[in-house]
Order: sequence, then C-alpha cells, then structure tokens
Amino acid sequence: MERLEGLSDIDAATRERLRFLVYANGLTGVERFCRLPDGSRQENAAEHSWHVSLCALVLAPGLAPNVDLERVLKMLAVHDVVEVEVGDVPIYDRAGREAVAAIEREAARRVFGGVPDGAPLLELWEEFEAAATDEARFARAVDRLQPVLLHWIGGGRVWRAREITRAQLDEVVEIVDRLWPRATHLARAMIDDAARRGDFARGET
Amino acid sequence: MERLEGLSDIDAATRERLRFLVYANGLTGVERFCRLPDGSRQENAAEHSWHVSLCALVLAPGLAPNVDLERVLKMLAVHDVVEVEVGDVPIYDRAGREAVAAIEREAARRVFGGVPDGAPLLELWEEFEAAATDEARFARAVDRLQPVLLHWIGGGRVWRAREITRAQLDEVVEIVDRLWPRATHLARAMIDDAARRGDFARGET
Repeated sequence: MERLEGLSDIDAATRERLRFLVYANGLTGVERFCRLPDGSRQENAAEHSWHVSLCALVLAPGLAPNVDLERVLKMLAVHDVVEVEVGDVPIYDRAGREAVAAIEREAARRVFGGVPDGAPLLELWEEFEAAATDEARFARAVDRLQPVLLHWIGGGRVWRAREITRAQLDEVVEIVDRLWPRATHLARAMIDDAARRGDFARGET
Repeated sequence: MERLEGLSDIDAATRERLRFLVYANGLTGVERFCRLPDGSRQENAAEHSWHVSLCALVLAPGLAPNVDLERVLKMLAVHDVVEVEVGDVPIYDRAGREAVAAIEREAARRVFGGVPDGAPLLELWEEFEAAATDEARFARAVDRLQPVLLHWIGGGRVWRAREITRAQLDEVVEIVDRLWPRATHLARAMIDDAARRGDFARGET
C-alpha cells in the first residue's frame, strides 16, 4: 500500500476508498469450502461474491419479485469482505461459525469504518448479518443456494470427500426455508436428486 | 449439465435459469490480462466482475451520486458473461476488440436468450455495450479504472512485462474521460504516479 501514501494528486478521502478497494481485493485469495463445478480447484470468495449476485439477479423475478434488488446486490457485494482477514468458515462448522462471529463484527467495524462516509457499507454488512429485512433474508438464502448448486452440479465430489451427510444438507434446506420459503423447493430438488445419485457420505442417504 | 436434465422436481423455467447460472460460472476460468496485486496469478473474469461492482458501489457517492446504482450493479453482474465462450480481449488490443464485437453480440443473444424471461438480461448487456446512458457510462468508466488500480498498486509489473507504453495508458485515461469526466482525475493520478516510478516500457515515460 506504500503507493497509496504517495498518491498526492487525489484527495485523502478518495485515497482511503482506493485503500479499501485494494484491501477487499484480497478476497481473491480466500479459498472456500466449495470447489468449482469442474473440480479443478476451490472457489474463492471473490468469485463467489459475484456468482451469488448473479444468482440473485436471475432468480429474483421468480422467487422474490418484490424485494429491493439494489439493496440485495449491494449487500452481496460487501457480505464477505471481512473474510479477507477472518477466512471462510464452512456453514457445516457450527462451532467455528459461532466462534468467529464476534471477530467478524469487530473486523467489519474497523474495515468499513476506515472508508470515508463508510457507514452505509457497514450498515449493509450488518443488515445482511441480522437477516431481519426481506432483502437480507433473500440475499442470505441465495448465499446458501449458490454453493448447493455448485456442489450438486459438480457431482457431489466435495460432499463425499468431506463426508458431508444428508442430515447436514437437510439442515441447509431448513435454513433456506426459514430465510426464504419460496426458495426451499429449489434447494430441496437438488439435495433430493443428490441423494438419489448417492452423492453423500455412505449410509447417510 | 446432464444433472440438470434429470432435475424433474422443479419447473422447466427454473431449470433453464440454473443452466444459465452454471454456464456463467465458467467466468471463473476466463483469465484476464490483469494480474492480482501480489502478482501471484492472473485475475479471472468472475473476480473482476465482483471487484468492479464493489468499486462502483464505493466510488459512486463521490463520482456519480445521481446514477441509478441498481442498474449499474445489474449491468456489471452480466457485463462479462459472454466471455465464457469468447474470452477476454485486452483493451490495448484494438483490432482484436473490433474483431470480437460481432461475435460477442451474437453470443449475448444466444446466451441470454436461453434464459426464460431473459430479455432484461440481454438489455442490461446491450445497454452496457452501447454506453448511451449515464448508468452504462459510469459502469464502463469503473470497468476501465479497476484494472488501472490493480496494475498500479501491483507495481506496474504487467505493464512492463507486456510492454505497455505511456501512450497506451493515456488512451485509457481518454476513454475514462469520454465516459465519465468526474473519474478522469483518478485514472490520471495513478498513471502519472506510475510514470514517475518508471512503470512503463522504457523510453516511453
């Protein structure tokens, strides 16, 4: 970031915005539990952030015609940024996720707090976390659906390799159902199909 | 995509939307001219699509307070999708870009045309290409700024390695200036700084 200090031709506020954007680009180096559909490598959090936005855009007309899509897309653009320092904790790791929640909140305040006029960015992040608005609930449901889509279309490789069970995936369906009932059938269809194909750890389908 | 055919529990329209989303995920495999700031590898078009959206979100309050940000974010989510089959053609390769334009238009019609009720997606792609609305012009300007930011913060490695000259970067500044004059100073500040540091091919600074 030494170059940013020397960028004297622009105002300090813009320089801090650029600093944030360079920092956030670190999501390209945060590996997720998910692999790409062709199994070639793990997905990173930057790719995921884009693809989940595209999923929201494409699925909203059918599943959530009345949500404020601008709000949804903004939330999804920032929802993983703090993983630059905290890393990705798979949804299957409940204890890990609880342990990391406070650290993420602290990181969000610091990271978004460093952006001039960054309060709206922190608000987006907090709205997503709180899941109290329709927009946050739809965004979170799509954030759960997207990895199911990639795992399932990829032939369940990751589920088998990591010994993910049917019961764990049923929990994912329940989470989707609590967040956005109109999306439940989609998660259910992929997971039922995966069960028929024997994608899960043995003895659990 | 064989699994999609067998997904009988959901309606055909939703199945086609999932097919599109899986297809579009192929952007994770489209390498761009740009390298990540740490120089470790090339950026891919999925990562770029997210980062340019985040740039738009963060820079809009200062540079484009009156644009419809929903429209901007939607355009940026789809703007590179046809690169799944066409690939990335660097902006410095003018002849290449002209050659590929018709192929991209044809691919866009086919790809977005396959999505049920996909006309709005094609419209977003065409609006971005036409650069005739404020939203498209701001989105395109940020799409030009983002790689300058990554190249510059990365120490100009790619510019030197690919023998990009100061004159070529001045053209990028001119493009930004034609699209969104309020963003010109930002592109100019980074490129002037790069010139001072000797980031460009020798004899051209």
